[in-house]
Amino acid sequence: MAEPTKVFLDEDDIPTHWYNIVADFPTAPPPHLHPGTKEPLQPGDLAALFPTGLIAQEASVERWIEIPEKVREIYKLWRPAPLHRARRLEAALGTTAKIYYKYEGESPVGSHKTNSAVPQAYYNALEGRMRLTTETGAGQWGSALAFATQIFGQTCDVWQVRNTYEGKPYRRMLMETFGATVTPSPSDRTEAGRALQARFPDTPGSLGMAISEAVEEAAKDPGASYALGSVLNHVVVHQSVIGLEALKQLDKFGEKAPDFLFACAGGGSNLAGIAFPFLRENIAGRASTRIVACEPAAAPSLTQGEYRYDFGDASGMTPLLKMYTLGSEFVPDPVHAGGLRYHGMAPLVSHAYHEGLLEAIAVKQRAAFAAGVEFARAEGIVPASESCHAIAGALDEARRATVEGTSPVILIGVSGSGQLDLPAYSEFLSGNMLDA
Amino acid sequence: MAEPTKVFLDEDDIPTHWYNIVADFPTAPPPHLHPGTKEPLQPGDLAALFPTGLIAQEASVERWIEIPEKVREIYKLWRPAPLHRARRLEAALGTTAKIYYKYEGESPVGSHKTNSAVPQAYYNALEGRMRLTTETGAGQWGSALAFATQIFGQTCDVWQVRNTYEGKPYRRMLMETFGATVTPSPSDRTEAGRALQARFPDTPGSLGMAISEAVEEAAKDPGASYALGSVLNHVVVHQSVIGLEALKQLDKFGEKAPDFLFACAGGGSNLAGIAFPFLRENIAGRASTRIVACEPAAAPSLTQGEYRYDFGDASGMTPLLKMYTLGSEFVPDPVHAGGLRYHGMAPLVSHAYHEGLLEAIAVKQRAAFAAGVEFARAEGIVPASESCHAIAGALDEARRATVEGTSPVILIGVSGSGQLDLPAYSEFLSGNMLDA
Repeated sequence: MAEPTKVFLDEDDIPTHWYNIVADFPTAPPPHLHPGTKEPLQPGDLAALFPTGLIAQEASVERWIEIPEKVREIYKLWRPAPLHRARRLEAALGTTAKIYYKYEGESPVGSHKTNSAVPQAYYNALEGRMRLTTETGAGQWGSALAFATQIFGQTCDVWQVRNTYEGKPYRRMLMETFGATVTPSPSDRTEAGRALQARFPDTPGSLGMAISEAVEEAAKDPGASYALGSVLNHVVVHQSVIGLEALKQLDKFGEKAPDFLFACAGGGSNLAGIAFPFLRENIAGRASTRIVACEPAAAPSLTQGEYRYDFGDASGMTPLLKMYTLGSEFVPDPVHAGGLRYHGMAPLVSHAYHEGLLEAIAVKQRAAFAAGVEFARAEGIVPASESCHAIAGALDEARRATVEGTSPVILIGVSGSGQLDLPAYSEFLSGNMLDA
Repeated sequence: MAEPTKVFLDEDDIPTHWYNIVADFPTAPPPHLHPGTKEPLQPGDLAALFPTGLIAQEASVERWIEIPEKVREIYKLWRPAPLHRARRLEAALGTTAKIYYKYEGESPVGSHKTNSAVPQAYYNALEGRMRLTTETGAGQWGSALAFATQIFGQTCDVWQVRNTYEGKPYRRMLMETFGATVTPSPSDRTEAGRALQARFPDTPGSLGMAISEAVEEAAKDPGASYALGSVLNHVVVHQSVIGLEALKQLDKFGEKAPDFLFACAGGGSNLAGIAFPFLRENIAGRASTRIVACEPAAAPSLTQGEYRYDFGDASGMTPLLKMYTLGSEFVPDPVHAGGLRYHGMAPLVSHAYHEGLLEAIAVKQRAAFAAGVEFARAEGIVPASESCHAIAGALDEARRATVEGTSPVILIGVSGSGQLDLPAYSEFLSGNMLDA
């Protein structure tokens, strides 16, 4: 048999349990706080927004959380996701490094977001919560939830950052194809939206603003829940399927653990999803993978933010989360970093970073797209704008290895497909992209 | 082990040989004719346009043609393509039928077209032909060739039907991301283009016109070849990898042969690719699969065209091909049928149809997209507008079976992803799509 280019798993190899790194952290991560009392959040405090199944996961300290059979069944539409050896990219670079990538772009909406959208819709449906509200930036999360909710007969109400809603209509169309309602944010539909428009006329919007609107709407409708596509612990837990599969697949390639793991980080769920199962190996002393979070220079929460309690949204409606943050009123420049343009970083990722368990770099968009084009031409996959940031970090490392004559194993988390990001590629290729 | 939802193959299961149905047809298909002499085409007649490797395949009567190792290596970037059991679609329909689909949308450009683009670029590169010209409609073929040529260091010059070039820029951006030059057709760059513009001012263009331009350009540059994305025998041969894999995968599902096979048909390469390996089983008496070509009502070459010799292009520059045709000057309405809007049908498909070896239906675009939305919501894959036509045919059959209480096995060829066709879905969902 020829050396494989990619390794498949069987459907039976889809993980039966999600992995929760809280059980393995050397120190416990700081709790979320009640925004009024500033006391550690009690499970009941979240009942207006989330079903009990997800609240339990948010606070769980169990290492393994069983994936419901119904969720695994739906995962089978696109999982297990392939792990590729980037042989053609290695050859194009002339590198001495070995490069692998785990590709999440074959999901229904072209990104890893469905890994959490499906269980979130499921646990809500179990408890009869048949309307979900959410925010979305580039639309990856919104389209994932639109897909997942219609499976369970739920309605889906999405606030999309206005700038993207107007400028990049394809993912809005995708959400609508799955039957969701999409409203540009800030909107007139909520008090939060009206107040934000009054304070920031002509704002392009932000994820924090859209979250405020979706949270307000869910809180005032007893049959509704709010759903968040990243940041929170239960989302991070769901995404662990990525890394759990990648571990098995690297093993099939005959690799123990990568020397480097690069993944893009916005809210943190993609990074955590692929990295935490590998971080577990590090913590247990079985490996020493250098895990590198790649964030956009235009929203550099890990590399430039403060580690403190902050709100998840722009209007101060969410619990206080201990995280690296640029401030909850941060409005990013309209760079092409898609869903990475969030003011904060998942508390579990922030904790790991604070404890020195992972590293972070900030990547400018031109460097990101230059790497994306190189990757596309070699591997045939046009990566999502988010994923380009991880690829840029990885290619830098591969070039360094080549100069130094070393042969590290590099794993890249390619979180999604960039077919709907082609206007950004076009801007890059035309030379008109700002170096921001 | 649970009943599988999809069946993977290993990379070693990628076919080692393409299948050529000419060897198994009960009667020989009519030859291509020289446009001047009207005599059967000699291999040398094509030398200005194609490399000898492809000319040999065009005329081959061998059953199996070896796939070069280099081509198989590149196929590994996305092949084997998955075969899915559409369990969720079956449940949504409440059908007694069993529905499978072979999905080609995970290729570098989201369609089956790379299956032929890669070998075409390869055989040209072998003979030092380092510039390829081609036409494209929706852009599936153009982007496939753009991807394939840059692998071999070739340049790629694409004429894209003007209507699509202007209205649907994403695939143009994809071609440019892979380094191709894209020109709207008819253009001022060629004599054919200038003449067509003079005769048909303000024409939206057609595939036939774009072919004329690309052929003219290749014929006048000794270092260039022309590449066609469908219709010709060698393209049909390359696409046989689809059906060869599907046969193996159905067998893994425990199915012998499908009762029905639905595939969309424009130029015919997708239909032939999935269907001819199954047609071989029919001819050999080992199966009796009803093969149904699904064409758009707006370009109904099989169901409404004449079976006669015609040109492949609008200006009469190509060989004469015996095929079902609407006339080489046919300009389709601007319906959302993507690459299906071609005036003729592959000679090998036409021959099979004429001999009664396959059936054909014409599908209107609203019915196509209604089926596409049903499919997307159940299976999570938004099918290409072309593929929607096949799905519409299959769902009709599944509904008929349910009424009649039968349980046929239905295989659908889903030729590509519709992520770049979302504006058409949006038009359908808004109720503004013409019933054409």
